[in-house]
Amino acid sequence: MWSVTHNDIEAIAIGAGILGTGGGGSPYLGQLRMQYLLKKGYSVNIISLDELADDARTCEVGWIGAPTVGIEKIWDGREPKWAVEALERYIGHPIDALLCSEIGGGNSIAPLEAGALTGKPVVDGDAMGRAFPEMQMSTHFIDGAPCNPSAMVDEKGNAIILDHLVDSFALEHFARPLCVQMGCVGMLALPLMSGAQVKKSSVRGTLTLAKQVGEAVLRARRTKEPMMEAVLSVTDGVELFAGKLTDVQRRTADGFARGEMTCEGLGTYRGETLRIAFQNENLVAWKNDTVVACVPDLICLLETETGEPITTEQLRYGLRVTILAIPCTDKFRTEAALKIVGPAAFGYPDVTYNPLPKQAGIGIE
Amino acid sequence: MWSVTHNDIEAIAIGAGILGTGGGGSPYLGQLRMQYLLKKGYSVNIISLDELADDARTCEVGWIGAPTVGIEKIWDGREPKWAVEALERYIGHPIDALLCSEIGGGNSIAPLEAGALTGKPVVDGDAMGRAFPEMQMSTHFIDGAPCNPSAMVDEKGNAIILDHLVDSFALEHFARPLCVQMGCVGMLALPLMSGAQVKKSSVRGTLTLAKQVGEAVLRARRTKEPMMEAVLSVTDGVELFAGKLTDVQRRTADGFARGEMTCEGLGTYRGETLRIAFQNENLVAWKNDTVVACVPDLICLLETETGEPITTEQLRYGLRVTILAIPCTDKFRTEAALKIVGPAAFGYPDVTYNPLPKQAGIGIE
Repeated sequence: MWSVTHNDIEAIAIGAGILGTGGGGSPYLGQLRMQYLLKKGYSVNIISLDELADDARTCEVGWIGAPTVGIEKIWDGREPKWAVEALERYIGHPIDALLCSEIGGGNSIAPLEAGALTGKPVVDGDAMGRAFPEMQMSTHFIDGAPCNPSAMVDEKGNAIILDHLVDSFALEHFARPLCVQMGCVGMLALPLMSGAQVKKSSVRGTLTLAKQVGEAVLRARRTKEPMMEAVLSVTDGVELFAGKLTDVQRRTADGFARGEMTCEGLGTYRGETLRIAFQNENLVAWKNDTVVACVPDLICLLETETGEPITTEQLRYGLRVTILAIPCTDKFRTEAALKIVGPAAFGYPDVTYNPLPKQAGIGIE
Repeated sequence: MWSVTHNDIEAIAIGAGILGTGGGGSPYLGQLRMQYLLKKGYSVNIISLDELADDARTCEVGWIGAPTVGIEKIWDGREPKWAVEALERYIGHPIDALLCSEIGGGNSIAPLEAGALTGKPVVDGDAMGRAFPEMQMSTHFIDGAPCNPSAMVDEKGNAIILDHLVDSFALEHFARPLCVQMGCVGMLALPLMSGAQVKKSSVRGTLTLAKQVGEAVLRARRTKEPMMEAVLSVTDGVELFAGKLTDVQRRTADGFARGEMTCEGLGTYRGETLRIAFQNENLVAWKNDTVVACVPDLICLLETETGEPITTEQLRYGLRVTILAIPCTDKFRTEAALKIVGPAAFGYPDVTYNPLPKQAGIGIE
């Protein structure tokens, strides 16, 4: 168990921004909100999966919506707490511990905010080992965890209980238009799970990993060691490309930020082009029209000089970026999982997933 | 208290089809479903508002969606029961009595189906004294009744609890896209109310009134007495027009059936034109471009020869129809109510509501 500090939050925000592959909502806004809570005297403890009791009542906490809207919409700040409380009211019992739905962007920090505001510990793990745009794309649901019940709230005080949905696709089907009605961003506490289930199907230690990634970036900024090598030394993976963003096509549709970006090579990549399609998160990368990485592996954009993660709502012409590919959790590499998180599930049936090689013991489990 | 018979259902379906002003869903399908339940040995009792205990737990039961879809979508048949049970599970108590949300079309019968399937009585009254397309258009909500909690289900077994919504407009705001996701028709049990509140703000005796209207139509068919006089003898109101439908513009959009119809006069109306705009229900009638009736008063289309109600999903070229205007409940004639159910609320700010005169003691209270 460790208590989160002001500096931890900065590191987690950077690390989760990178692991979020463009999505999960603004990590910087999450950082500001959580550091504000710490400054006000709130605190939150992180516990490992092994410290969680098998019969503990747990739920994930996270935003749903379009990150393009998430950076503009004015929030109350208490939504993470309200979502947990709505679920507690419904089940008639307190929730014992919280969990990240995804270790990406602001959604790696939302459970920490909920933990600070409710006094509950947050488990060191998540249900994706990255960020993904849709709710069925979860190691818990793929492992057969229940997807009921969940609670969804907005900044006005509206609260809706997703009491019984037939499967995790129905959860996505109903939660998405609700989030659109909530102004394209809503807060979820989902679903009620036992500690035993969480231990079985979570991606382990990802809050710690995000912190390590962020600390590597911060250290490289201080020491001027090569930035991308610093990141890859804790995440595994490879550098795909480096260059300048020359085109961004982006639209906010159906509650998502969708689009495509083009990057012209610089340095050793001069004369080459990398193209990336995204739906909140980066999905497929084509180098000179050949696929070089795709979901469920992570395609991460970092500002070349600072290592700052670039989320999809921040993409703009002229940014100098380096693109890394990082191997995803093994839980997403099974045949069953790939039906839900592989390229075909995102509308790319012709893209074949070739798993990025992993170095033992580094990065996402 | 009276127990509903096979013949009662036929009469209620016709009467509620007329009082539904085009909406509420197919009364005929409702009739078939309920008569099937009676044939299977189920029964349901109607109790008057005076027979309802002040501390009774009650809820309305009704379909939400586009009637154009309601006649095509295959239902399970148990949705009215499931909606009530979902609400009971949430509140942790049994519901004592059910109520019509609107005395219109199939929605006058949905609570009877729920009553038959759950063994609960249905109160003789409703929240509109007609049908209306949106959820805030309710005598209960206008009277300040709580709009929480409600339950919404579909034929697949999905159940969602509208736990806390800030007002009845928020209920409409969130329930409508949920119904779209449910395939444009969903089933609601809404909201939990005390018997005292129901007595205070319901439109009284409308199941009995619907039955009387239907019986008048059935009698006129047998005795060949003038059909429209028979209907007006129990409903109050006036004949606006009679003729042939010559144009129907209809689209299913945003979960509603919206459009406009044109009727060319026959008999004493020859050479004249009546135009009606609708959103599930008939909203405004223009005779030769002059408004002759509008919401909240009832604009009812009946097949001229049979008195059969014509709902908006049944409108088609060539139908011979007679159009009646019937005074609405006094509860909708206050300044506060007209803001929610008057012509401006439906997008007709230039239409002035001139209340249809009422004959004492006849028709909708």
